[in-house]
Amino acid sequence: MVPVIAVVGKSGSGKTTLLTRLIQELKQRGFRVGAIKHSHHPFDLDRQGKDSWRLLQAGAEGVAFASSSQVAVLRGVKAELTVDELVALYLGSVDLVLVEGYREAPLPKIEVVRDGGTLFSPKEQLLAIIGEGGAPGLDVPRFSPEDVQGLADFVVERFLQPDPSRAQGKAVTLLVNGRFVSLEGPVREIFRAVILGLIGVLKGSEVPRRVQILIGEDEGSK
Amino acid sequence: MVPVIAVVGKSGSGKTTLLTRLIQELKQRGFRVGAIKHSHHPFDLDRQGKDSWRLLQAGAEGVAFASSSQVAVLRGVKAELTVDELVALYLGSVDLVLVEGYREAPLPKIEVVRDGGTLFSPKEQLLAIIGEGGAPGLDVPRFSPEDVQGLADFVVERFLQPDPSRAQGKAVTLLVNGRFVSLEGPVREIFRAVILGLIGVLKGSEVPRRVQILIGEDEGSK
Repeated sequence: MVPVIAVVGKSGSGKTTLLTRLIQELKQRGFRVGAIKHSHHPFDLDRQGKDSWRLLQAGAEGVAFASSSQVAVLRGVKAELTVDELVALYLGSVDLVLVEGYREAPLPKIEVVRDGGTLFSPKEQLLAIIGEGGAPGLDVPRFSPEDVQGLADFVVERFLQPDPSRAQGKAVTLLVNGRFVSLEGPVREIFRAVILGLIGVLKGSEVPRRVQILIGEDEGSK
Repeated sequence: MVPVIAVVGKSGSGKTTLLTRLIQELKQRGFRVGAIKHSHHPFDLDRQGKDSWRLLQAGAEGVAFASSSQVAVLRGVKAELTVDELVALYLGSVDLVLVEGYREAPLPKIEVVRDGGTLFSPKEQLLAIIGEGGAPGLDVPRFSPEDVQGLADFVVERFLQPDPSRAQGKAVTLLVNGRFVSLEGPVREIFRAVILGLIGVLKGSEVPRRVQILIGEDEGSK
């Protein structure tokens, strides 16, 4: 399972700037990072008059753009997707996901608090504080907004230790009702073996390098 | 499995306009349509300086934007995703997918040919011709670019008859190495029963309404 950390803080506290610098620093160290930005409002990624806008305006449920190096997708959903679904289905194989927003989600959090500000993350979710604000005596690591290297060291130490199941390409990702279900050791192997066994009966020839199965309701298309 | 139709034609022949009108017409008739646009070039859906651009520029492998009504994703891929993967993972639950481009893919095709132009789709893939061009004696339905209702009637008749497995919410979608594998009747039920059985042992309580499983290599993140 990919570790997910939320960067939270009041509007204007510098969350996106911190995220940008942290992504740069982790990328330089060789890690692959995905990002999710949560919005309470509909957004418009595309310019009016361009093709994706025309197709969405015409009533398409979703529009995908694909080239050999990029994929872009815009789609409507009936209900908000979970962070787990966004990570598993949309961000591919990354080492870490940093999300901006999702203040209410039970995720480990880095909170940006300016001098004089107060914390709003529950203590048990708080990984680190960025800035001078919040409760001064709190037993939580604190970094200055400029100390991106220190923050990156901390994140690597806590979240980016090698995971042998991923390295061996034997990963099995299971989501039930939009939430990750952890599969460890022999249980993961049973899932793998049973599903690959069923597929082996069907196919006979081609070696399944990559298998994707979706059962039941769709994840919320309009 | 969701039916997929490619709209092909030379540059400037009016493919996007036809797609837009066809999506409008099918939407009015109550169908849910997804669209895929294929590009040979990298694209820039976002305005420079906006947050998604900043996060991608910083080195994120992928960036997702999520609200309660929309999802937008931009990500890099190592290898081009297949049409099946784009449909299953990115477009959600739709009745039909219309793709623009993918001239080389073995998909059923609607070809737009202006007067005097020649067809390039193989005869066996050709569903319909739009316009006055191409081989006049060919035994393939032909529609004027204005006759979107006629074209929609034809598409509904051929591709949009009710599929009981989807209506019952019992759909099982299986992709192996990026390609749909058809599961019919009892075989589909075996996949469903075995996987839900394994999950039942793990969970015990929550009823799995929606299950997503990914095994092996990722679908091509950079």
